[in-house]
Amino acid sequence: MYSERFTKLTPYVPGEQPQDRSYIKLNTNENPYAPAPGVAEVLQAYDAETLRRYPDPNAEALCHLIADTHGLKREQVMVGNGSDEILSFVFFAFFDSARGPLLFPEHTYSFYPVYCDYYNIAYKKVPLNEDYSINIDGYVREKSCGLIIPNPNAPTGILLSLDSVTSLMERWPEDRVVVVDEAYVDFGGESAVSLIDRFPNLLVVRTFSKSYSLAGSRLGWAMGHADLIQALYAVKDSFNSYPVDTVTQKVGMAAMADRAWFDQTRGRVMVERERVSKALTALGWRVLPSAANFVFAGAPALDGKAVYEGLKAKGVLVRFFNKEGLTPFVRITIGTAEENTALLEAVASL
Amino acid sequence: MYSERFTKLTPYVPGEQPQDRSYIKLNTNENPYAPAPGVAEVLQAYDAETLRRYPDPNAEALCHLIADTHGLKREQVMVGNGSDEILSFVFFAFFDSARGPLLFPEHTYSFYPVYCDYYNIAYKKVPLNEDYSINIDGYVREKSCGLIIPNPNAPTGILLSLDSVTSLMERWPEDRVVVVDEAYVDFGGESAVSLIDRFPNLLVVRTFSKSYSLAGSRLGWAMGHADLIQALYAVKDSFNSYPVDTVTQKVGMAAMADRAWFDQTRGRVMVERERVSKALTALGWRVLPSAANFVFAGAPALDGKAVYEGLKAKGVLVRFFNKEGLTPFVRITIGTAEENTALLEAVASL
Repeated sequence: MYSERFTKLTPYVPGEQPQDRSYIKLNTNENPYAPAPGVAEVLQAYDAETLRRYPDPNAEALCHLIADTHGLKREQVMVGNGSDEILSFVFFAFFDSARGPLLFPEHTYSFYPVYCDYYNIAYKKVPLNEDYSINIDGYVREKSCGLIIPNPNAPTGILLSLDSVTSLMERWPEDRVVVVDEAYVDFGGESAVSLIDRFPNLLVVRTFSKSYSLAGSRLGWAMGHADLIQALYAVKDSFNSYPVDTVTQKVGMAAMADRAWFDQTRGRVMVERERVSKALTALGWRVLPSAANFVFAGAPALDGKAVYEGLKAKGVLVRFFNKEGLTPFVRITIGTAEENTALLEAVASL
Repeated sequence: MYSERFTKLTPYVPGEQPQDRSYIKLNTNENPYAPAPGVAEVLQAYDAETLRRYPDPNAEALCHLIADTHGLKREQVMVGNGSDEILSFVFFAFFDSARGPLLFPEHTYSFYPVYCDYYNIAYKKVPLNEDYSINIDGYVREKSCGLIIPNPNAPTGILLSLDSVTSLMERWPEDRVVVVDEAYVDFGGESAVSLIDRFPNLLVVRTFSKSYSLAGSRLGWAMGHADLIQALYAVKDSFNSYPVDTVTQKVGMAAMADRAWFDQTRGRVMVERERVSKALTALGWRVLPSAANFVFAGAPALDGKAVYEGLKAKGVLVRFFNKEGLTPFVRITIGTAEENTALLEAVASL
């Protein structure tokens, strides 16, 4: 009944999404603040009749806004149904085992090996440094068909400096694509988008899910050389011509247009992240230095699973990872000030 | 720079979507009527703050409503980002060349060979009968990994009776999946959904784009045995865990819940289809018998391309197909009564 390729799948398992709203939900790196007020206005004023028409298949207006916002040309931008879909198209277009395995960090976004299984791409995990940071040299010396790194990395939250990314690109073969997955970059990282004109093999992937508070809308984008973007369009048009619905195109534009809201909300998240990090450290926890909207932290006497269970019993959801090297830690999303205070109280009473 | 598989793509080309709204747009089989009034209400009353959360990854509420509407169990239903995405998952899960080529009609939805290229699936086109109807016997005698047919077929609009589909299923190997793509079935066809409990290898695919007037929302679904649906979920979770955004889940529910609106609008389309068919016939055209929201018709002295160009010059967009066997025809979407009258006037003056 099933295809051969189907039998090789190991699906991704997303974080819990309990329908029980009584939990303080700090487990899936969602933004604690609402999207920009313009999003509500778009929905309220929406002309539902227009939904009978197909969307603009290439979301021209949205892509122009993204390009303008990042100082790029229109043809250097493409959008998709969440950065997950963009990443899937990227894996299809640029990575195959004939030229060597795909490289990514040993501990990173766990969807990467899933895409590899989906498209039958061999991969090789490159160990992190002892402090859990990404080891650039480890990638440069491997033969590969390409490389993908999140920056900041997940679930560690640790940032790679723009200088390090530049140094990587300078030492990387010109005919192999490097993807920098910047889902969390707006919470304190420096984007590699400034390197795009210099490195035609660099692709930067972003999402509206985190810093724009639109996880529910499923919207992500890619930025890179026009040739790479054109390839992604060809993949899109071989999979689903209209991946982004009409409402989401307008919602995304409203969110990106409001720079003040964006800066205010991400600013609050960063302030709270420092407060949570300090408070956990004061309680004896090991807290990795985070540039994301979460912290990766280990309690002094309990492993991650025990912390997860203890906090869940107190009404706070966090995420633990049942993987060698990560078991001492939990990943805690930064919530509102009230949520973070409740978290810290729950932690103190563990 | 590119993967080997990328070099094999031949992307799908969707119909024109001109931003110039002055055209009477009868080229992409969109519904001429607005979606149910409940859709506008959902958007207007939408709590934008909820968009900061990820959607329900499996759209439970929507799937329950679809199951209830079709007399199925929840586990026999799955939704996706348009039926195009659902179809892509279906091709991944069930078809591979190791067991023979995939079969589909010679003239049919032109995305099918594109999916085959995407997943490297060999395919074989089975000729239509002389009257352009689907020839069941032609499929049964071929060795294959599976079969996909739209019912009604596109671009012909011709329906296969439920008896014919049943007869096909009775003669089809139990370990090969048959997909009936019912994008247009609500405009006069009999659904194969009633056969699902009898044939565990039957999968029925539907869309909100046509009869529910939600092409702009990108929403489709599959119905079949729980085992087939479970396989599609595994594929979904290996590609994009959250393919359907929160707004679209609610919009789809509002559309499906309003049975009166659904029956009224599709009823009007069917009445107009008969009027357009008769009028074209009276003008000497050959009109294939349609059970869809379009007609496939050929002018007495002009080929399809000439008709397309002549009508476009008069402000009416239709679609022609530059493929052997289809060049005499154009595909004309059924619009509002006013649009159809304008079409017929333009046709008369060609």
